[in-house]
Amino acid sequence: MPQHIGDTIFFEKPVTVKSYAAVGGKKEGEGPLAFGFDALFKDNYLGKDTWEMAESALQHKAVELCLQKACHKLKDVSVAFAGDLQAQCTASNYAMRELGVPFIGLYGACSTMAESLGLCAVFCEGGYAKNALAVTSSHFCTAEREFRTPLDYGGKRTPSAQWTATAAGAVLVSACMQETEITKSKNIILIKAATFGRVQDLSVCDINNMGAAMAPAAAATLCRYFKDSKQMPSDFDLIFTGDLGAFGSALLIEVMEREGVILQNHQDCGCLLYSKEKQTVNAGGSGAGCSASVLTSYILPKLKSGELSKVLFVATGALMSQTSFLQGESIPGIAHLVELESKAI
Amino acid sequence: MPQHIGDTIFFEKPVTVKSYAAVGGKKEGEGPLAFGFDALFKDNYLGKDTWEMAESALQHKAVELCLQKACHKLKDVSVAFAGDLQAQCTASNYAMRELGVPFIGLYGACSTMAESLGLCAVFCEGGYAKNALAVTSSHFCTAEREFRTPLDYGGKRTPSAQWTATAAGAVLVSACMQETEITKSKNIILIKAATFGRVQDLSVCDINNMGAAMAPAAAATLCRYFKDSKQMPSDFDLIFTGDLGAFGSALLIEVMEREGVILQNHQDCGCLLYSKEKQTVNAGGSGAGCSASVLTSYILPKLKSGELSKVLFVATGALMSQTSFLQGESIPGIAHLVELESKAI
Repeated sequence: MPQHIGDTIFFEKPVTVKSYAAVGGKKEGEGPLAFGFDALFKDNYLGKDTWEMAESALQHKAVELCLQKACHKLKDVSVAFAGDLQAQCTASNYAMRELGVPFIGLYGACSTMAESLGLCAVFCEGGYAKNALAVTSSHFCTAEREFRTPLDYGGKRTPSAQWTATAAGAVLVSACMQETEITKSKNIILIKAATFGRVQDLSVCDINNMGAAMAPAAAATLCRYFKDSKQMPSDFDLIFTGDLGAFGSALLIEVMEREGVILQNHQDCGCLLYSKEKQTVNAGGSGAGCSASVLTSYILPKLKSGELSKVLFVATGALMSQTSFLQGESIPGIAHLVELESKAI
Repeated sequence: MPQHIGDTIFFEKPVTVKSYAAVGGKKEGEGPLAFGFDALFKDNYLGKDTWEMAESALQHKAVELCLQKACHKLKDVSVAFAGDLQAQCTASNYAMRELGVPFIGLYGACSTMAESLGLCAVFCEGGYAKNALAVTSSHFCTAEREFRTPLDYGGKRTPSAQWTATAAGAVLVSACMQETEITKSKNIILIKAATFGRVQDLSVCDINNMGAAMAPAAAATLCRYFKDSKQMPSDFDLIFTGDLGAFGSALLIEVMEREGVILQNHQDCGCLLYSKEKQTVNAGGSGAGCSASVLTSYILPKLKSGELSKVLFVATGALMSQTSFLQGESIPGIAHLVELESKAI
């Protein structure tokens, strides 16, 4: 039986990250993490007719490469958890139409990768799935169409605005330790715990400052996790959030300080994906594909190599829509957390 | 450990439906199931400024009544699974902002109630939650704004079009048998199995005939379940789908016949919620709140009273968006299934 303390589930049986893959677009290929991506596309249409179908293709490609790396086929996938930012999550729905595996659709905005990893771990530890897949994506152009003005309009971006990543990440989770040897690694990556978040809303209404809307959610989930696990930030090599951007990250540090927690080892996926100096992304990257691709191109490889041994991955989501924004509603935020550990085998 | 055969999870430990509630709008209050609803609102705004916020209020009310009936408080809820049809699932997000419980956001279109019930059962049986909440909603006016033309336009509806229900349903699931006695019933309702569906797409592009787009998904999930469980339709009192409507239901019977399965005990939530004779709903009801409210106002009460003893609840979803429809994409369908049983205590 798992241990359930407060809002946090501690996995007693080993739940491993068996494989992972990151795919991205042109801008991601020009960023500092490009070397860690499994595939990069110069054409953001990926040869499709629409941006929306291109985003589905990103998910499809990420899953294909993730399974390839684990020497697995689609038939080995018991269940897939997927989500994205499009209305009615169509990037995932159309990707899953092609993949044809049992599919549980999620919506957690940019928090979806942590949400789906937590669910994968529950399914694998509990014996409800042998191999579970977590996949999320975003696409700059589909997000602009969904949430902002048409691209052709050429609207000005505020300094606090974030750049939606054109990227997808896929992670294959398993309860079976033995099979991870397929990947011939010296280390295995374990999912040790998961905290599913509660919605936080401190009345931020500025759709160009979503970092500020999500920072309180990241802080709330982190505080709950530290309380439930009786651990503290210094117990971890790094604490990754995704995607608060520069402004949201500064706010997180401030909010945590007020709660009496000093975060000195914090990094944000939105600040890692692009170069602040060389790329025009204002406050940083965002989108369900940003934290997913930073996880799969940067964090998981470092855990696998043993460079990192214990980290928290806290993905944050801004839960508004264009309609709720235009109706004057404030932006609710949520953050889900997974604890990841590298273990020598 | 649960048994996992094919795509179906068989719960070995008892997972019970502890409580449930249905709320609806004006049209639902004039329909044949009105007597089973826990609350009905004559004003589809529910006193809110927007239809979108009214839909959130429907979810909130359904949860409030569901917990009241089980003598539970919000603090007793370990996790809530919720979803709706709005872009970025804002009806759920804003409802969860008020409720403040750990929240896992889902998108499964009209299949969301079965998807969330299956997840609740996994979390409760596996020891990941003590009490898990499933809640879904839809609202006629928010769905028209989301998927079709503005209401004021007064567009004509085709005979195969379905009417999106203004309704929500909430179900509290628990692994604890003893506590169900709070509800002082002679019978308990058990969730015995769940099948998470795979996306099916037979190239239906008509957004006014979603029953046709979803019927193959219902057939596929039913066939998988019958194969995995070695049961047949006659093993059940009734097999409920939601929401195929009149056209989709006829198609389901036809598709199943071609697969060699005769469905004589089938009822569709979309055909049950409204009166075909007295209410203008064309092919029947639809929406994530339709199957949810028929489940909680009609199916679960009949299981609780012992009038029904063994049923399948197969909720179906059409996974397109207005954008994918306008781009000429066909409509992918999905169906998730839960097996429900009434047991005397």
